[in-house]
Amino acid sequence: MTIPTATPPDILRCAYMDIVVTDLAKSREFYVDILGLVVTEESDTEIYLRSFEEFIHHNLVLRQGPIAAVAAMAFRVRSPEDVDLAEAYYKELGCRTERRTEGFVTGIGDSVRVEDPLGFPYEFFYATTHVERLAWRYDLQGPGALVRLDHFNQVTPDVGRGRKYLEDLGFRVTEDIQDSDGVTYAAWMRRKDTVHDTALTGGNGPRMHHIAFSTHEKHNIIYICDKLGALRKSDLIERGPGRHGVSNAFYLYLRDPDGHRIEIYTQDYYTGDPDNPVVTWDVHDNQRRDWWGNPVVPSWYTDASLVLDLDGNPQPVIERTEPREMAVTVGADGFSYTRKDDALAGFKLGTTL
Amino acid sequence: MTIPTATPPDILRCAYMDIVVTDLAKSREFYVDILGLVVTEESDTEIYLRSFEEFIHHNLVLRQGPIAAVAAMAFRVRSPEDVDLAEAYYKELGCRTERRTEGFVTGIGDSVRVEDPLGFPYEFFYATTHVERLAWRYDLQGPGALVRLDHFNQVTPDVGRGRKYLEDLGFRVTEDIQDSDGVTYAAWMRRKDTVHDTALTGGNGPRMHHIAFSTHEKHNIIYICDKLGALRKSDLIERGPGRHGVSNAFYLYLRDPDGHRIEIYTQDYYTGDPDNPVVTWDVHDNQRRDWWGNPVVPSWYTDASLVLDLDGNPQPVIERTEPREMAVTVGADGFSYTRKDDALAGFKLGTTL
Amino acid sequence: MTIPTATPPDILRCAYMDIVVTDLAKSREFYVDILGLVVTEESDTEIYLRSFEEFIHHNLVLRQGPIAAVAAMAFRVRSPEDVDLAEAYYKELGCRTERRTEGFVTGIGDSVRVEDPLGFPYEFFYATTHVERLAWRYDLQGPGALVRLDHFNQVTPDVGRGRKYLEDLGFRVTEDIQDSDGVTYAAWMRRKDTVHDTALTGGNGPRMHHIAFSTHEKHNIIYICDKLGALRKSDLIERGPGRHGVSNAFYLYLRDPDGHRIEIYTQDYYTGDPDNPVVTWDVHDNQRRDWWGNPVVPSWYTDASLVLDLDGNPQPVIERTEPREMAVTVGADGFSYTRKDDALAGFKLGTTL
Amino acid sequence: MTIPTATPPDILRCAYMDIVVTDLAKSREFYVDILGLVVTEESDTEIYLRSFEEFIHHNLVLRQGPIAAVAAMAFRVRSPEDVDLAEAYYKELGCRTERRTEGFVTGIGDSVRVEDPLGFPYEFFYATTHVERLAWRYDLQGPGALVRLDHFNQVTPDVGRGRKYLEDLGFRVTEDIQDSDGVTYAAWMRRKDTVHDTALTGGNGPRMHHIAFSTHEKHNIIYICDKLGALRKSDLIERGPGRHGVSNAFYLYLRDPDGHRIEIYTQDYYTGDPDNPVVTWDVHDNQRRDWWGNPVVPSWYTDASLVLDLDGNPQPVIERTEPREMAVTVGADGFSYTRKDDALAGFKLGTTL
Repeated sequence: MTIPTATPPDILRCAYMDIVVTDLAKSREFYVDILGLVVTEESDTEIYLRSFEEFIHHNLVLRQGPIAAVAAMAFRVRSPEDVDLAEAYYKELGCRTERRTEGFVTGIGDSVRVEDPLGFPYEFFYATTHVERLAWRYDLQGPGALVRLDHFNQVTPDVGRGRKYLEDLGFRVTEDIQDSDGVTYAAWMRRKDTVHDTALTGGNGPRMHHIAFSTHEKHNIIYICDKLGALRKSDLIERGPGRHGVSNAFYLYLRDPDGHRIEIYTQDYYTGDPDNPVVTWDVHDNQRRDWWGNPVVPSWYTDASLVLDLDGNPQPVIERTEPREMAVTVGADGFSYTRKDDALAGFKLGTTL
Repeated sequence: MTIPTATPPDILRCAYMDIVVTDLAKSREFYVDILGLVVTEESDTEIYLRSFEEFIHHNLVLRQGPIAAVAAMAFRVRSPEDVDLAEAYYKELGCRTERRTEGFVTGIGDSVRVEDPLGFPYEFFYATTHVERLAWRYDLQGPGALVRLDHFNQVTPDVGRGRKYLEDLGFRVTEDIQDSDGVTYAAWMRRKDTVHDTALTGGNGPRMHHIAFSTHEKHNIIYICDKLGALRKSDLIERGPGRHGVSNAFYLYLRDPDGHRIEIYTQDYYTGDPDNPVVTWDVHDNQRRDWWGNPVVPSWYTDASLVLDLDGNPQPVIERTEPREMAVTVGADGFSYTRKDDALAGFKLGTTL
Repeated sequence: MTIPTATPPDILRCAYMDIVVTDLAKSREFYVDILGLVVTEESDTEIYLRSFEEFIHHNLVLRQGPIAAVAAMAFRVRSPEDVDLAEAYYKELGCRTERRTEGFVTGIGDSVRVEDPLGFPYEFFYATTHVERLAWRYDLQGPGALVRLDHFNQVTPDVGRGRKYLEDLGFRVTEDIQDSDGVTYAAWMRRKDTVHDTALTGGNGPRMHHIAFSTHEKHNIIYICDKLGALRKSDLIERGPGRHGVSNAFYLYLRDPDGHRIEIYTQDYYTGDPDNPVVTWDVHDNQRRDWWGNPVVPSWYTDASLVLDLDGNPQPVIERTEPREMAVTVGADGFSYTRKDDALAGFKLGTTL
Repeated sequence: MTIPTATPPDILRCAYMDIVVTDLAKSREFYVDILGLVVTEESDTEIYLRSFEEFIHHNLVLRQGPIAAVAAMAFRVRSPEDVDLAEAYYKELGCRTERRTEGFVTGIGDSVRVEDPLGFPYEFFYATTHVERLAWRYDLQGPGALVRLDHFNQVTPDVGRGRKYLEDLGFRVTEDIQDSDGVTYAAWMRRKDTVHDTALTGGNGPRMHHIAFSTHEKHNIIYICDKLGALRKSDLIERGPGRHGVSNAFYLYLRDPDGHRIEIYTQDYYTGDPDNPVVTWDVHDNQRRDWWGNPVVPSWYTDASLVLDLDGNPQPVIERTEPREMAVTVGADGFSYTRKDDALAGFKLGTTL
């Protein structure tokens, strides 16, 4: 992968994900009835959803299809011209691109989709239909209201390579997880002023790890758990709620009816200065993934969603060859610590991990 | 155990626990510096602690001693005469009692301590020194302020027998966990208008399972976790935070430096009517202990604190002979469900329990 | 008023209020659509509402009628026999009583209603239809969920006389407001373990000042304000939100379409011990009514609802002859302080009160 | 005021305010002991304070001096070269500038201060000493922890003129308040992705209206009020807490010992897209300043802090000639509405405003 000489597009933020679901009615129940995302519009085969503070057409497209997968991860750019820049940039990278001036989905105009160097289907657009920002519509907002799209998270075998690619594209690293041998297990990368617009998680990929929506406060996230309990759907809770070490945000991971992973997230910090300090976490630090040291469920490490190429076929999944975070931290061959120099692991690390 | 003919004392509420710790300085760091309980007074060998809304002398006594154990579980009664009633009641039950008009500990007057039929060291008192109720002293209350003592929890082999004894004593059951064979795994029993003043947990006993303090809101409990993370003491978090099925309260379990278990608890419901509906949970219901279906760590089922007899010697621990909750719900021989008639367990029940 | 020799009934708690509204559809919009109270049942002329944690039939009856007023303030007693005691007690007091074994309203059985010595229509009952306690039904609970009925508040000219009457009836004072001449401006009185089941506010009476429901947390109350703003009904907010000095609770006062006052309330403290310390506030203490010193709107002092006699006619309103709280604390003839010995009033006291 | 042809500096965000206080010890008590801002360093004459998530040296300088005033409102720019751009830009505007490569205050390097066209002492800098970001230090964060500097607010007679100047400088308007004659009463202007880095409030100026710090959640703000009550300093609360219409944030206004106004603020929305919809509020809309329709205290409209020129002398205050917001909305000559076409004002608008 060479460094392109072309000017990269000026990316504003992660904007929406276009995902294929195998049972649209079931997915609607999950995203609309349970999570309360706002329906901008819908048809028999597609549902366009947004968060309460959003004014662009949507943050999530649910599309009926034969296989659960991700059709596009879309970023908004600063101007119409940045779509041209994006197209040129990826062409120079040797990537397959497809430009549609009418847009690929309802509510979005001139866009380019690419099969990026890591195998992900990225989209770049500026033009979009404005819709009502429902920030003040408390009458519509439930106790677990999702108010913003916060970030994407992608699984890729070689995090170092992916990080370089995204830095060239204009992303800045805010935090990462490494070991003392210099292996990077994950990296968080931002355009807007938060900890990330997307993150790279080391693993077999390209696969989509999760999409994250924000609430205003922590109790909103707790409510979502309480509601899932009331609906006897607590098995949709995969991990959490908890406090991340990385990002310092309060989090919850759910799995939708197809197994796509959704994070609910709140309260990371401002990162908009160019010299924003990068935080590097030791992979053996047991508080890096959960600040309270609660165990990460194995499925969270192993499961992820397929991503599609521009023809709609799943991208082949390539194995990670570097050490895996779960292997080096859990069980007989791994180790974690709460205090770096403690000889003793304690009941928590010994028993529950 | 016969039903006593004597009038039982009119118990107001659980009032304080007197516990032996093996390193008073370490315990002080945990209860005062970390948890922020209020020191009413202290000496080289004892520390008297209370919650912010308390006006009696203390809710917890930490006492330096050779072996970590519980010296007394004290209940406040409605009048001085109820101490007489308590003494007579337990004498008729054939229990060993000890009466001290000057009290057993600082700040408490005329009291009786008993070795109760289940082997627990119960105390009954009315007289106490009033201290300042710090409810309005927000300048002193930290972000995880413990505002009330809520309840005790005791481990006993035969929950049915224990329940009968406590009902005779005037307690009322609010919730319990049973199986379809009629085995009771745990029962919650109240005097004040909350879900419990004490609970009985089936297991090897007599042992003390935990003592619980309340916060006002859920974020106060989350803060305690965040602070433990900041102090690199997250391994003191044993279980949670989570939402209980039983009691509907938000909870967190910590272990003090001696392994005594502390619960932080908030928001159960009013139970003060005599016909308050009793809620019975199926032991196989995976939401009974955690409404979100998160797994219960094994140590929570197996570990508990020794209790002392009136001479200060540990009571022998008797094995539970009925089925054990952990055995019937977890692993190859047990089972749990999220939806009663689901054939499939799902990733959560199958993988993480 | 003589002290009755009869045994007073054992009152458990305030249980429900029966109020007359002049436009049932408008009232339904307020209590059901906006506040989210649970409809137990309804007809063309009556709506029975309860809070989410309630298991008795209702906490509020809305009854279509010609004049906005209170038909009954109902207390639940410990046993069926306590209804007999209540009837005998008020008869000995010389009060008019009416006994209906079938109950006065749907869902309530054998009851007695009385015109009490202060002119209020009190009801006492034990028998009630149990309904589902919706404590665990988070799927039904909105962001401002009202989970309990907390208390009533009554306006009466002579608080000292009223207090004596209620103490004889078994209530205990938890807090009051007095001046240095011994005039009592208000008193809070409890049966259950909270700061009050009812309070007496000095003023022209008998009138009903407000009925209060509880939320779990403070953000639930803030949400109710936000929702009223979203519905362009912010003028239903009369006072608050704020923190009370008295009771230490977080509060909000609303006015329903007929002007009946509703308080939303959370987080007072446990008062169940017989020696619970009584807190007396100086009427000139500017933090007594609002701990933050925010001004009390005049309507809060002057407005209140008529109450009905047993024939359904409004009770005549008698003027308070003792000094009035608003007069002695606000404006040219009154004064308030933030710090008792401050010479200067400061911009807050001087300008905004 | 001509449009400069020079390139304006690329401003990142509002960064710190340098204020003169007349009693440093009293100010320290307010900002450190009560509000809990973090002391980066201090001397006998200056205190450097920051919020918990900040990594630049400070967000607030308290400087002992003879007259309470604002010495500088400092913005951080994207690079060292942007300081040059700023200097050139203001020189072309004909403004007095002063460049100090060693910085004007501790912890800040090469900077330029200007007397801007509106009379405000703006500073632009890039170089700063990095300090520990205390985001994860929950052990140090109190219940009212201030985690970020959010914005400044400036009083200026001609908002339209000020808005034009700031737009030329690169700010973008997010919201404003106007009347049907086109008079602008206030405008909110941002560089970072929030509703504002500074706002212009119409009134006699140049004066500083307030500086605002953020908390994570609403309960943090409520706690600050509760603490001020506990300290018997509730008269430091000038307005709120409440929900803004403009910005949709939850707010509280305090006055420091010199009368400088501090806002505590949380939860506005993302504004980072170039086509972010501008929200214009009608000055007569009673929910614009407080979404719940609670009255704005007069001092909030009339009081503000003097600002200094580069010699340290107060800038003369020029009267606003356009209509004043308080005059057009309150009292006999003004009017406000909750619902635009309501004939009746209702008790809230009529009585309390």
